[in-house]
Amino acid sequence: MNNSHIRLNRATHEWVIYAPSRRQRPQEFPIASELPSSDAERARCPFCHYHNESILLELMDASGQGWQTRVVPNKYPALSPDVKPLRSLSGIYLELPGYGHHEVVIESPHHDQTLATMPLEAVSTVVETYRQRYLTLMAIPQNLFIIIFRNHGQTAGASLRHPHSQIITTPIVPRHYRWQEDEAQRYFDDWGRCAYCDMLEFELCDRQRLIADNDEFIAFVPYAAEVPCEVMILPKVHSADFGTITPHQVVQFASILKQVLLKLYQKLNNPAYNFAIMTAARYKANEPQLHWSCQIRPRLGTPAGFEMGSGISINPSLPEADAEFLNS
Amino acid sequence: MNNSHIRLNRATHEWVIYAPSRRQRPQEFPIASELPSSDAERARCPFCHYHNESILLELMDASGQGWQTRVVPNKYPALSPDVKPLRSLSGIYLELPGYGHHEVVIESPHHDQTLATMPLEAVSTVVETYRQRYLTLMAIPQNLFIIIFRNHGQTAGASLRHPHSQIITTPIVPRHYRWQEDEAQRYFDDWGRCAYCDMLEFELCDRQRLIADNDEFIAFVPYAAEVPCEVMILPKVHSADFGTITPHQVVQFASILKQVLLKLYQKLNNPAYNFAIMTAARYKANEPQLHWSCQIRPRLGTPAGFEMGSGISINPSLPEADAEFLNS
Repeated sequence: MNNSHIRLNRATHEWVIYAPSRRQRPQEFPIASELPSSDAERARCPFCHYHNESILLELMDASGQGWQTRVVPNKYPALSPDVKPLRSLSGIYLELPGYGHHEVVIESPHHDQTLATMPLEAVSTVVETYRQRYLTLMAIPQNLFIIIFRNHGQTAGASLRHPHSQIITTPIVPRHYRWQEDEAQRYFDDWGRCAYCDMLEFELCDRQRLIADNDEFIAFVPYAAEVPCEVMILPKVHSADFGTITPHQVVQFASILKQVLLKLYQKLNNPAYNFAIMTAARYKANEPQLHWSCQIRPRLGTPAGFEMGSGISINPSLPEADAEFLNS
Repeated sequence: MNNSHIRLNRATHEWVIYAPSRRQRPQEFPIASELPSSDAERARCPFCHYHNESILLELMDASGQGWQTRVVPNKYPALSPDVKPLRSLSGIYLELPGYGHHEVVIESPHHDQTLATMPLEAVSTVVETYRQRYLTLMAIPQNLFIIIFRNHGQTAGASLRHPHSQIITTPIVPRHYRWQEDEAQRYFDDWGRCAYCDMLEFELCDRQRLIADNDEFIAFVPYAAEVPCEVMILPKVHSADFGTITPHQVVQFASILKQVLLKLYQKLNNPAYNFAIMTAARYKANEPQLHWSCQIRPRLGTPAGFEMGSGISINPSLPEADAEFLNS
């Protein structure tokens, strides 16, 4: 396993190149430590001092004395619910108005908290907030697709430190997603089973890439991880649809998410990362070949021209070594 | 056109969101100016002082007095030609040894040159170098796929300043590419024509997104560009295969590439960028629905969790405005 080799992601059918000769140990990646927040930064933080009237949802903290999470419209939205998603031609090209929702989940009233170090009850409230907004937004028929995601750290695209995640809905389903649906369908038609269910059973037995495991969820470094220390969380009971998450699963998901983020925080010195909850597009929520997931990717390297042109990732770090490192 | 809208890339069928409310003018993106090179940097540059025996190709400069380009093996290769690309199963997963070529094209003996500012003859020699290595590498049957690419600037993944590009061949064809082939096939079956030929004719007429145009090539900001100031170069005469490039086309391609890179250099203050030459995978070189291209992407923003999860880009800048800016 010391030589360069190429692995196939069974779910997406994307190839990934493993290049140990280019390898840095995960802890050797240059990680830009962020300075502690200043009084001035907190004084101008729009989430510390939210004055806009429109709070879409507010959940209370465990004490019941104050708020824990707030959902507000993104001040610089990529999309707006105020237009109609009607297609038109522009010359030979197809376009439509930018219909959609773009919301911010403020995860805590405290500027310097982060999910990795917040109490479990607080993380559970964040996940419960995702669940409620998911159900509200997917009740709107124009929303065909939804992504719940988090950018942590400047190099991961976060412009504000105050802990927050985002939700975007679109009136279109990305081709990228349809491709993954096609691959999942083909696997199901070949093997009669969900590819993600097969992966989670294999990873639970094999244990080489396992990061965490509880009643309802498993976290592991995917066999064909695209970046060092990538982690995937899957629900153990098959479901295509994040919206089916039960109250018990909300707590269990919060617990495993916190566990994974804490390992990254401790082992990689609070790295920049992105996570995204990927769930079935509208009309696909009951299909047996799709499985919702949460993908977590630390931002340790820089994809460049090869990745741009080919779509193949070059990962200098072996998933098994990453798992050992995160579990050490 | 001032509102957010969503555009479909006709060739790949990927959607892109245009979000002018998040817009920065291209010149307002924070671009990390690189400091001039130091004596110490030049003294330790492995391309200024190349001692390895194996030079795979060397082309002379216009004066015929010294070398202009050298092709050498990458010192930290992602892949190696010394193994056999034989598939095997690892549990439920598929893998193969990391067979492939990974070469560096040293574009000039001069450390501080760059393609944008090199004389046209020198850029032509670089393109001629690409052509010769392409033909040599694609004569090896195990190489199913080839990418010629360039990373410029640290944020684009370049670790050395000395002007260079890279060539990688793989024994696998990325799913990403097969998807683009599928879309091109579908377009051809629908319309009876190559999608790229249709795009280039439309862009030549429409002129809103045109950047440059000569006997043999066109450069334009794609209608569904994924990033600000993205540029695509297409040969005007249909060909799926970069290897068919004629001596006249070599000079014309060098000329339009230099023109585009010089516009980026001047208008965006020498930004980091990646380019990749995309050409048909083995066995597809004669197909009428595929068209080779060169994709150039300045690194002005940071893709984040939404892009990672959805595969949809959010571009704050309109392609028509980018073209106007680059042409101003």
